[in-house]
Amino acid sequence: MNDFTYITPTRYVFGHDAESKVGALAIANGIRHALVVYGKGSVVRSGLLGRVKDSLEKSGVKVTELGGVQPNPTDEKVYEGIALGRKMLVEGVIAVGGGSAIDTAKAIAAGIPYNGDFWDFYAGKTLVEKALPIGVVLTIPAAGSEGSGNSVITHRNGMKKISLRTDMALRPKFSCLNPELTFTLPPYQTACGICDMMIHIFERYFSPTPAVEVTDRVAEGLIMAIMTEAPKVMKSPCDYDARANIMWSGTLAHNGLCGTGRAEDWTSHFMEHEVSALYPEVAHGAGLAVMVPAWMTYVAQRKPGKVAQLARRVMGVTCDDDMEAAKEGIKRLREFFCSLGLPSTLTELGVKESDIPVMVEKLHINKGPQVGAYVPLTSADTAEIYRIAM
Amino acid sequence: MNDFTYITPTRYVFGHDAESKVGALAIANGIRHALVVYGKGSVVRSGLLGRVKDSLEKSGVKVTELGGVQPNPTDEKVYEGIALGRKMLVEGVIAVGGGSAIDTAKAIAAGIPYNGDFWDFYAGKTLVEKALPIGVVLTIPAAGSEGSGNSVITHRNGMKKISLRTDMALRPKFSCLNPELTFTLPPYQTACGICDMMIHIFERYFSPTPAVEVTDRVAEGLIMAIMTEAPKVMKSPCDYDARANIMWSGTLAHNGLCGTGRAEDWTSHFMEHEVSALYPEVAHGAGLAVMVPAWMTYVAQRKPGKVAQLARRVMGVTCDDDMEAAKEGIKRLREFFCSLGLPSTLTELGVKESDIPVMVEKLHINKGPQVGAYVPLTSADTAEIYRIAM
Repeated sequence: MNDFTYITPTRYVFGHDAESKVGALAIANGIRHALVVYGKGSVVRSGLLGRVKDSLEKSGVKVTELGGVQPNPTDEKVYEGIALGRKMLVEGVIAVGGGSAIDTAKAIAAGIPYNGDFWDFYAGKTLVEKALPIGVVLTIPAAGSEGSGNSVITHRNGMKKISLRTDMALRPKFSCLNPELTFTLPPYQTACGICDMMIHIFERYFSPTPAVEVTDRVAEGLIMAIMTEAPKVMKSPCDYDARANIMWSGTLAHNGLCGTGRAEDWTSHFMEHEVSALYPEVAHGAGLAVMVPAWMTYVAQRKPGKVAQLARRVMGVTCDDDMEAAKEGIKRLREFFCSLGLPSTLTELGVKESDIPVMVEKLHINKGPQVGAYVPLTSADTAEIYRIAM
Repeated sequence: MNDFTYITPTRYVFGHDAESKVGALAIANGIRHALVVYGKGSVVRSGLLGRVKDSLEKSGVKVTELGGVQPNPTDEKVYEGIALGRKMLVEGVIAVGGGSAIDTAKAIAAGIPYNGDFWDFYAGKTLVEKALPIGVVLTIPAAGSEGSGNSVITHRNGMKKISLRTDMALRPKFSCLNPELTFTLPPYQTACGICDMMIHIFERYFSPTPAVEVTDRVAEGLIMAIMTEAPKVMKSPCDYDARANIMWSGTLAHNGLCGTGRAEDWTSHFMEHEVSALYPEVAHGAGLAVMVPAWMTYVAQRKPGKVAQLARRVMGVTCDDDMEAAKEGIKRLREFFCSLGLPSTLTELGVKESDIPVMVEKLHINKGPQVGAYVPLTSADTAEIYRIAM
């Protein structure tokens, strides 16, 4: 097991009507004027935004709104939010939505007090030393940003999609998680979210670090829970308990717990980021449903061990031979994603084989000549993985 | 799944030489003068206390020492620490040791700024509203107090052993977890710690709340990891990785994670507290190794379901019938505790059958006419469980 530091100070308020506590939580965290960040009109139409504003205003919190955050959010909305937040002298940023709204809120919260271009953080030029307090009302269990210190923003100039990681600065002070808010998610978005959270676990599970039984077992437990609950939410979107299990799994999948004590991989994420940077209409979870089995297929040829462990402990594979067990596990994982209505090839997502060289080139410009930890991969390897995924 | 609030803001610094960071961590948490609380001379003799003081003093932190905390710590040492801390104007309390030192440190940290008798918190008369910042250098993975908001103190007057639970006030600001510090633990103490952490998980796992697949699976994963690593540390006390897995499991077992979204039980703990209140020389983990299988045996007769689930998912039992599966699971659990050198009867611990009425009476005076959640139990039930445990 590797040495590590771990801190996850977010207050999770989970359950029925959690969003009604946002006002009290804002005040408890010193926010008397909040920039409320959201995406599409669905949070307006559903009445959620109104309820959040009511809760804030009843607690005496002034509200400034920033709507219109897009999926795969870009720097443009962040600059707009920073300018607006500075002008209005907001004291905190509260996201109402999923990963895109939260990641935008985080970038704004870091950018407002920073005397420079916020992109410096994402470009690795400087570290986030302070940020305004961040709050979340979650509507899409997927990105895990409600409990993480991370934020993914795409720079339109060059279509760079960059994931910024902080230890603590960008962890939300509080996250309100009401499973009922997810009842009306379209099935495809529900499925993409489920895939995203599973792969947040895989990216940590597929590690070259030996002797991490405790985090392996926790990770496997989370995956099993997700695979048990996922069919229930697909069949009965208003099954509160199944939605609750999925929502809490999505947070635990990405708040760092499963990464304690080990090197992480993240190749599938990086490869998917290049896909959705080129094709912003591709949902991150759908891209991952394609990339992960392709990645697993490739790395299992060199190092089947952990894929076989997953197959045996999680997918019910009983085969003794590691390579065979790995193959069968990948097959079952593909079938599971398929059963959720997710794609299994890049072709289905509109990606062309001729895009591969560009994606490979940008991947390795962004991430260096080698990516990944479980099996470090060169551009020849990643090109082959994109081909497997076609 | 039940609604819940969950926050665990402790910074865990885990790995080789973690104790050398205590000075920087104290300063980062505003502690310029620390009351350092410890137990027996072993932390002095091993040189650990010296290293901790060095780290603090190098960072400019003044040190006042309070040694001599006993296992099953009492109010006496807490009063001594509060008086000393007030006199010396300490700004934080740092425990070097296991649960006894940490729980004493927590009580002192709450008591110093409180204008009244610290026992008010434990007697349920008032809530802890503020406390001095608490830090930990852990030497015994067992109690899980390094990540919890709880503290257990015994009042000598009436031998009341009371567990105080706080949401946040008594969570350590930081905990330094170096597995190497546990290499020299005597085998019996190692075994008691392993039992204690397993049962922190059981007390949450045995819940009447349905539809908690995610926390069930995480709990089962932790138990499996502990049962895999435990024989390794018993056989090779200096196996770093095995010690690391046990240490991190002990923290995760009790930082609240496994209790999210469900009612908890805690009957076995309460029943054991009455044993060690009468017989302070009984190690908590040893008492639990006896009480838990006895409790399981009794409750499985009324409600075998969860015991059978544990047996099947964790203990490898394949039997279809719930009652039979539960029986076999309890048998395997007893054998596991036995393999660690732990006792299996109260008689072995020196408890007399004639003590049962007193323990039962005190249990129900402390906890009310019914205890437990998985199966609520009256005094007739708990008396029978003590008899099973004889």
